[in-house]
Formats: sequence, structure tokens, C-alpha cells
Amino acid sequence: MKQRIYINDVAVRDGFQIEKNFIPTETKIALIDALSETGLAKIEVTSFVHPKLVPNMADAVEILANINRVKGVTYSVLIPNLKGMERAIETHKTRGKVDEINVFLSASETHNRANVNRTCDQSFEDFAIMIKMAKDAGIRMMGIVATAFGCPFEGHVPEERVLGFAKRYVDLGFDGVTLGDTTGMANPAQVERISAALVQQCPNVEHTLHFHNTRGMGLANVVAGIRAGIVSYDGSLAGLGGCPFAPGATGNICTEDTVNMLEDMGYDTGVDLDKLLAAAVKMPAIVGHEVTGQVMRAGKTMHLHAVPDKLYTQ
Amino acid sequence: MKQRIYINDVAVRDGFQIEKNFIPTETKIALIDALSETGLAKIEVTSFVHPKLVPNMADAVEILANINRVKGVTYSVLIPNLKGMERAIETHKTRGKVDEINVFLSASETHNRANVNRTCDQSFEDFAIMIKMAKDAGIRMMGIVATAFGCPFEGHVPEERVLGFAKRYVDLGFDGVTLGDTTGMANPAQVERISAALVQQCPNVEHTLHFHNTRGMGLANVVAGIRAGIVSYDGSLAGLGGCPFAPGATGNICTEDTVNMLEDMGYDTGVDLDKLLAAAVKMPAIVGHEVTGQVMRAGKTMHLHAVPDKLYTQ
Repeated sequence: MKQRIYINDVAVRDGFQIEKNFIPTETKIALIDALSETGLAKIEVTSFVHPKLVPNMADAVEILANINRVKGVTYSVLIPNLKGMERAIETHKTRGKVDEINVFLSASETHNRANVNRTCDQSFEDFAIMIKMAKDAGIRMMGIVATAFGCPFEGHVPEERVLGFAKRYVDLGFDGVTLGDTTGMANPAQVERISAALVQQCPNVEHTLHFHNTRGMGLANVVAGIRAGIVSYDGSLAGLGGCPFAPGATGNICTEDTVNMLEDMGYDTGVDLDKLLAAAVKMPAIVGHEVTGQVMRAGKTMHLHAVPDKLYTQ
Repeated sequence: MKQRIYINDVAVRDGFQIEKNFIPTETKIALIDALSETGLAKIEVTSFVHPKLVPNMADAVEILANINRVKGVTYSVLIPNLKGMERAIETHKTRGKVDEINVFLSASETHNRANVNRTCDQSFEDFAIMIKMAKDAGIRMMGIVATAFGCPFEGHVPEERVLGFAKRYVDLGFDGVTLGDTTGMANPAQVERISAALVQQCPNVEHTLHFHNTRGMGLANVVAGIRAGIVSYDGSLAGLGGCPFAPGATGNICTEDTVNMLEDMGYDTGVDLDKLLAAAVKMPAIVGHEVTGQVMRAGKTMHLHAVPDKLYTQ
């Protein structure tokens, strides 16, 4: 019996949010619909940020109103603040169902201030209101601790601080906690240590890890997280996404590369890798630039080749 | 006391051998000399292949004659056949010392035939002659098992076959065995399993793992190898190298990305990452194209940034 690992895709939100050109709403919907057929556990389909700040998310309502929902797939949205929460709940009630809401703060006080103009305590004051709104509407709530493995401004982030925020989410009644490696600073030793502590301290909620491959450690960190008992991972189709501080740097871990590795290792991701790759190869045309996915270039691990006529090394 | 991990760089051989433009000999020598100052354990400086087949290796003798050797660094060369062995020994005696010779066969019969036009048994007949030549000349010998984790023609490669070849090297008197993931098919579960078996079956020689990052699993495989007790890893500066079957696919694991991860994890690589990065950033100009190294783009993990004036998410 293979161990099940749950794979979530965030490309349409985390990837598209930094794209300069507006991705047409129908393109986003077609992509989400294709992803829905692959066996992914969750798809983060949009965010309710201010459309002037993140123009690519301006069509949040239209997306939720028009995607084809597949049974068994959780459709989630990201919410930055109370205003976004109100829009999400309103959309959920009138235009299109929201299964799950992700809210976030940064473990680093400096990063939280820069990102959402709040102290961490102020963020949790908002979360206390949001969780009530979500529960009233019957929507699951996940709490993200961003910069959980390091902050690009402060550097080291104390582990007890990360675990403390996770516990505050749980104490408020959140259904799950996500640790986010926002700028790719996590290493496998650290991931295994913090993840094991998270599982131990917050045993009765979902745990998700969200890695970036900024310094090449992304898939190594997934393996480390699994060793610690965490079974849910965010990836981004074709490796879409980026790092605000390093132009050209790699972004989120690539969903199909993650699935390829985990299936090779003998895990059951529930994902049809061929369908996922068929969606991934369309991404360069959608965003108008190259992407970092590697399996889409090299082929699946057991994609075999004809023996060449010409000897190629000597 | 930190655990020591030994890092070897193969960019000048494994990276440059597939470059279409000839890299000037003085450029190669300057790069090797820079690498010698970084704390790397070994540098593979050239190969004695036929210069018509691999034009970039035509200056093997000049390189060995002119590099500045640093005490404690092992300078190795790759040898494909007896003719190359003769040239290496002659060079060692008359022009420039060779510390260590790497010879190779593929665990897959089909790949070995395509690569060196030999059956695996024929390869070992040659190795029996080569090891005697090397011992007479006082040169260490390392035996590489290529396609040890999968063959692009045959697919699955039986583990007992890989371990059998490793043992044949050891029985011939080789000083070490390298398992090579020639086309990036290895996954961490497999690496940990085979590496543990190698350490157990061949306890009294050096063990080295040589990974490619073709499908993004390279650094995860390094972590898996260390878990199995292997402490020596090949990397390629700036991630130089490639895959003959997938144009644009990633090649060898990137040396400086590997060092960055291992130092973050608390290992002692003995390498000065700043010096390594200073050499790596010159690589795009040397080869005339982009490279896949990620730390050179994003900065070391603890490379911190000023807090931006403008909030960047909302």
C-alpha cells in the first residue's frame, strides 16, 4: 500500500500574480479546468487582493463563477485582509462557491509589516474576525505562516516563533496550517526539524508545506517534510512564480517535477502526470516567457530514447 | 563537530566537453586555478578523449602542464580507453602530474555499447590493464558506474548489476567507486537504498555520487546519499553540463548550489562559497550562454535585502 501525498497547485494565483501582462480570464478558467482533471487535491484559483495592486487577480469573481468544479478537488482562494474576506464571502454566496480560504502572516515582523502593513498581533486580530466569517459561511480556513524558514530582511526566524503562530491559528479554530518558504531560504535539515515540531504541537489539523526552489533546494525540502510526517505540498505548474528580490530567480517548486519525483519514490500522489504535463507545456505560451519546469523539458524519468546511430562520447 | 562532506568540481571536463565553441586553454587554466583556491576536494581538469570527438578536450596536456597545483586538492582526469590511458600516463611522466584517473562503464549494456563500443565485460578487461598502468605510475584510480540509477535506453537498471560492477572495480584494486546518474533518472529513495548497499558491500574504498539535475531531484539525491553514509559529491560550477537527449535540459548538479545547501544544513564542505560564487558568475561569459546555477542569481541563503519602500503584495 503506497503512502498518499496530496499535491496542491498554486500557479494560477502565486504564479500569475507576478505576471506583468494580464492573462485572459478564459485562459485562467481553461487552465483551472484542465488542472481539475489531473487528480490534484487542491487548486488555489485566485486571490481577493486589490485589483490595482495585483491586476492579474482582478477577475477573481468571474473565475469562481465560471470554473467547472470536479468532485474531490478543493478550490481555494487567498485573502490578504478583511476587505478581501468580505468580497470572498459575498462571491461564495452569490456567484461561485469557495471551498477554502488561505490567509497569511509572515513569521518575521519586518516582513509582515512590509507585506500587509500590520504587526503580527494585528494580523491575528483580523484572523479572529475572519475565521468567524468563514465558519458562518461554511468555508474551511487555512492559516499560512510565511517566511517560516527565513526572512529576506531579518534573516534567521526563530522556530518557536513559527510554531507559536501555527498554534495561534489552531487555537482560533483554523482547519490547517501552511508553512511557507517565501523566498527559498529553507534547507532540508531545518524543514525536517520544524515540520516534526509542527506535527507534534498541532496534531489535529492539516499541515501543508509551501516551498520555493529559489536556491535549488525545493524538492529536497519536500522529501524532508515527508520524513517529518507532512503529506500535503503546494507546487506551481511549470514552476511558475518568482522571487521579488532576484530577477530571474526560480519561484515555487514545480508541481509536475514534484509529482514525477514522488511517484518515482513510490508515493501515491493521485495525480495523472501525463495530464499535468499536457497542461504545463502550454504555460510558456500563456505567460509569454520561458518557465523553469524540468520534466517538461527532459521527459518523465522513464521516458526512454532510441539508441543513437552515432556514438556520443568517444 | 560538523560532519565533513567532500565536494569535487567537474565543470571543466563534464561541462566544457559539450560546449560547441572551443574554450581557450588559458581560460580553462585560469578557472581551474581559481577553483583550486576555493577549498574543493577534487577538480576534474580534463579528459584524454579523442580530440576530434570532443574538441574542447584537445588541450589536455597543456592544462596539466600549466595549472597551479594547490596542496590538498586532487587533480583528476577522465579516461575513456587504453589509448587515452597511455596519453595520460605519458603526460603524467613528462608534462604534468595526474593525481587520479577516472574510468567508466555504464551499468546498462546498451548504454555502454553506445558510449564506448564495448560490452561491460570488455570494459573490465581494459580496466584490468589500466589499473596496473596506473599503479605502476603511482596514480590513484576511481571507477565510475554510469547510468547507475537508470538508463535512457533500457530504463530500469538492476541494483545488483550496479553493485556487481562496483565490486569488480574494488576487486581489481581501484581506490574508489563513483555511481553516476548520467541522465538524471535517480530519485532520493533509490539513491539512499543503493548507496547504503554500496557502502556495505565495498566498505574499504572511497564512494562518490555524481548527480545530474535533469528532473530537479539533484540536491534531494545528495541529501539521500549523505543519509546513506556517502561523503563525496561531484558538482559542476554554475550547473554547467547538459543532457544529450534533451536540448535545454539541466545538466550536472550545480557545485555552488550544493555547497550552499550543505553549509545551511550544518555540514562542513571546506569550501569558501564566496570564492566559488566569484568563479561561477564568470561562467556565462566563458561559455556564451546562460547557466542554471541558482544561488548565483538569488544570492546565498542569508543574503539579506533592504526593506522596500513600497509594499509589494498589497
